[in-house]
Amino acid sequence: MTTHLSQARRVSLKAFRSAFLDFVDDPFYRPKVDSVRYVADGLLVLENGRVKDFGPYADLQPIYADVLTTAYPDRLIIPGMIDTHIHFPQTEMIAAYGEQLLEWLTKYTFPTEAKFKDKAYAQEIAVFFLDELLKHGTTTALVFATVYPQSAEAFFEEASRRNLRMIAGKVLMDRNAPDFLVDTPETGYEDSKRLIQKWHKNGRLLYAITPRFAVTSSDAQLRLAGKLLAEFPDVYLHTHLSENVNEVKLVAELFPDRKGYLDVYDHAGLVGDKSVFAHGVQLTDAEFARLSAARSAIAFCPTSNLFLGSGLFDLAKAKSVDHPVKVGLGTDVGAGTSFSLLQTTNEAYKVAQLRGQKLSSFQALFLATLGGARALSLEDTIGNFDVGKEADFIVLDPRATPLMARRTPHPTATSLEELADQVFALMMMGDDRTVCATYIMGELAYAQPGKTANKTEP
Amino acid sequence: MTTHLSQARRVSLKAFRSAFLDFVDDPFYRPKVDSVRYVADGLLVLENGRVKDFGPYADLQPIYADVLTTAYPDRLIIPGMIDTHIHFPQTEMIAAYGEQLLEWLTKYTFPTEAKFKDKAYAQEIAVFFLDELLKHGTTTALVFATVYPQSAEAFFEEASRRNLRMIAGKVLMDRNAPDFLVDTPETGYEDSKRLIQKWHKNGRLLYAITPRFAVTSSDAQLRLAGKLLAEFPDVYLHTHLSENVNEVKLVAELFPDRKGYLDVYDHAGLVGDKSVFAHGVQLTDAEFARLSAARSAIAFCPTSNLFLGSGLFDLAKAKSVDHPVKVGLGTDVGAGTSFSLLQTTNEAYKVAQLRGQKLSSFQALFLATLGGARALSLEDTIGNFDVGKEADFIVLDPRATPLMARRTPHPTATSLEELADQVFALMMMGDDRTVCATYIMGELAYAQPGKTANKTEP
Repeated sequence: MTTHLSQARRVSLKAFRSAFLDFVDDPFYRPKVDSVRYVADGLLVLENGRVKDFGPYADLQPIYADVLTTAYPDRLIIPGMIDTHIHFPQTEMIAAYGEQLLEWLTKYTFPTEAKFKDKAYAQEIAVFFLDELLKHGTTTALVFATVYPQSAEAFFEEASRRNLRMIAGKVLMDRNAPDFLVDTPETGYEDSKRLIQKWHKNGRLLYAITPRFAVTSSDAQLRLAGKLLAEFPDVYLHTHLSENVNEVKLVAELFPDRKGYLDVYDHAGLVGDKSVFAHGVQLTDAEFARLSAARSAIAFCPTSNLFLGSGLFDLAKAKSVDHPVKVGLGTDVGAGTSFSLLQTTNEAYKVAQLRGQKLSSFQALFLATLGGARALSLEDTIGNFDVGKEADFIVLDPRATPLMARRTPHPTATSLEELADQVFALMMMGDDRTVCATYIMGELAYAQPGKTANKTEP
Repeated sequence: MTTHLSQARRVSLKAFRSAFLDFVDDPFYRPKVDSVRYVADGLLVLENGRVKDFGPYADLQPIYADVLTTAYPDRLIIPGMIDTHIHFPQTEMIAAYGEQLLEWLTKYTFPTEAKFKDKAYAQEIAVFFLDELLKHGTTTALVFATVYPQSAEAFFEEASRRNLRMIAGKVLMDRNAPDFLVDTPETGYEDSKRLIQKWHKNGRLLYAITPRFAVTSSDAQLRLAGKLLAEFPDVYLHTHLSENVNEVKLVAELFPDRKGYLDVYDHAGLVGDKSVFAHGVQLTDAEFARLSAARSAIAFCPTSNLFLGSGLFDLAKAKSVDHPVKVGLGTDVGAGTSFSLLQTTNEAYKVAQLRGQKLSSFQALFLATLGGARALSLEDTIGNFDVGKEADFIVLDPRATPLMARRTPHPTATSLEELADQVFALMMMGDDRTVCATYIMGELAYAQPGKTANKTEP
């Protein structure tokens, strides 16, 4: 009888053994001993794709001795990374030369997005895009589609097929763009509503109402977006905010009755606790305070902000104690220059340095994991290894290249100080080569050739 | 008799067929049609490691039909890249956390450099360092050793063994550093002189008199360095200049009689046409003008300037028509975050964008090749494929990753406009994976696994 039970357990449970790092609180506000959870030799036990148990191997092994265990020696397992701002249709136009925001949109973005009227093309790019995300260790993203509802359909279908926790939306834009790329307030509202009804909470998928930005949406469209958000209060609002100096000026001209850029959205009822604003490089103190009060989030996109010359985001202000704003990291591909959130933390560090601020490696990795989950109001679902959470995680090789191996002589850190240094080397030098494997709900979704695990029968 | 002659030619000559890109003039000052040389299907013919002939395959093939030809279809061959500022002893401390220049030196750099008193250790790192350079497509570099003469010896020995064109020097530093890491004006002078006599123009090697910077050299030491430079006028002077705001202030305190930072060096006779100054982020207009008049060069090190939060170099001012200053690119590893000059051009572009300047892909690649050669007064020797030059070159794959392949559908550009875009994608997304092979004096010195050439018998 014992054998019988044991076999049933072996079917429903699985376990992973490695070093594990995640966060249980925010290292911007709490000392690392209270915010960082590190298990140098840990066991992560899953049931039906969720965390059933997590702790030191020595403690848990006796309890789960009969469970099939996959071992990743000399690796570091962290929660899947979370990209809080990215455009899937801009994949192919990454690294487009020579412009700042408004000219870059007209010259490169709009012509590229026009291709996504063709659903088959949108499907092809969605497949490629999600392959890139998984290869780079990103398991959840907040994603712009294009104005065409079928581009959002294509994305949701592919994300659904892969059982990914993704948030996306059809773009709303009814002016200041080419005729072939605009909707109307009414069609934008109706198309978004249909997509919400079909995809929001369909499996792991979620919907974001997605006005591109105040420049390309009339006040009428923003108000209808606000109406839709009021009708579906657990749906997201995802847009751009205060990225570029000329953009801020243009918004002031387009909305002379508003107090500022954020107020345009606020007036339309778009500033709430499910709202995620990309960039915020040019925000005023009053706008930071308003975002804090509204419990809205900012997606900090350093590679994009540098590439377009937008400026240096004031992360310390966003993470202030007095007016804390939720912050996640965004690659913002195609204005961002890499799909890698590790490379994004590299440039986040540099932005902080140029501002005379210090971004610790734990703070940076928090932004890419639990911080991103909090920015997306998903901290009860993903972002760390708490029991019950969905088991999206990635396996990193801290010694992925000869240079990283020299910089990090010991693959497994034995103290938080050593770990902080190891993670800093990972963020400064890591890229997709650092990601050995990506697991979605406990299932292997990507494995780098040559970086296999040891399967261990109990 | 014809057969006999032909066989002799086959032994002494070799040829490479691919697409080739190099520069014949400076694209900052000349239109691309006059500065960029692109041969979509070219033949590069070498004799004894030097360029014997170069041009379209269709024109040259009949002349060299009997020469063994290595073909790299769908690749782009460019001159080996030139790193005008890098520290070989800092290889292992790349990505050291959390400090700006002066604190970073004390906390990380000095303890690391102390290890190089041990020549065996210096040899080990020299081997690793040169492997990294070749893997990243860098064939010439201007290199800091440490204060210990044996560290420079170790570097020169290894570079000599590989027949590399390298410039290096023992560091001069006689104050404001730990006791174990300082020389004296006299020992620094004597040790440098001995190294010059042994290594300068020894094969392809060249020497640079290398005071670390004005903070760590007394006026007496700088004057002796100037005396040495006067005795050996074709030797280089390599130092740091105006990198960080606090450094500039400290130099002003240390040298109250001088007009500014550059004047400290000028007063010691160190500002000439073989002088290369790293950084120059904080230079005044008068200092730019002085560097122009003296025909000195600046090594622009963007990844380092961002990593240490030093600031944004004013490249447009350096490349002004009125007061042009020679500029090369430097990775500045260990403060720089990558050995890749392609990744360095990525961040050079971002620095320019933040300053509202545009850095074209051709301008950026010029800085990494012929521009670097000019900065090092080596434009008659390396930097492009002119007949007679030393054949250091690299083979790039413009489609090295799935994302690059999607961004660059056609491996071989058919116009300068298409080429400019292809090169821009290379600089924004390229890294060591982009480098298929590195040739030194026509000999294969590095080949990326799986990226082989086609050998073609005539």
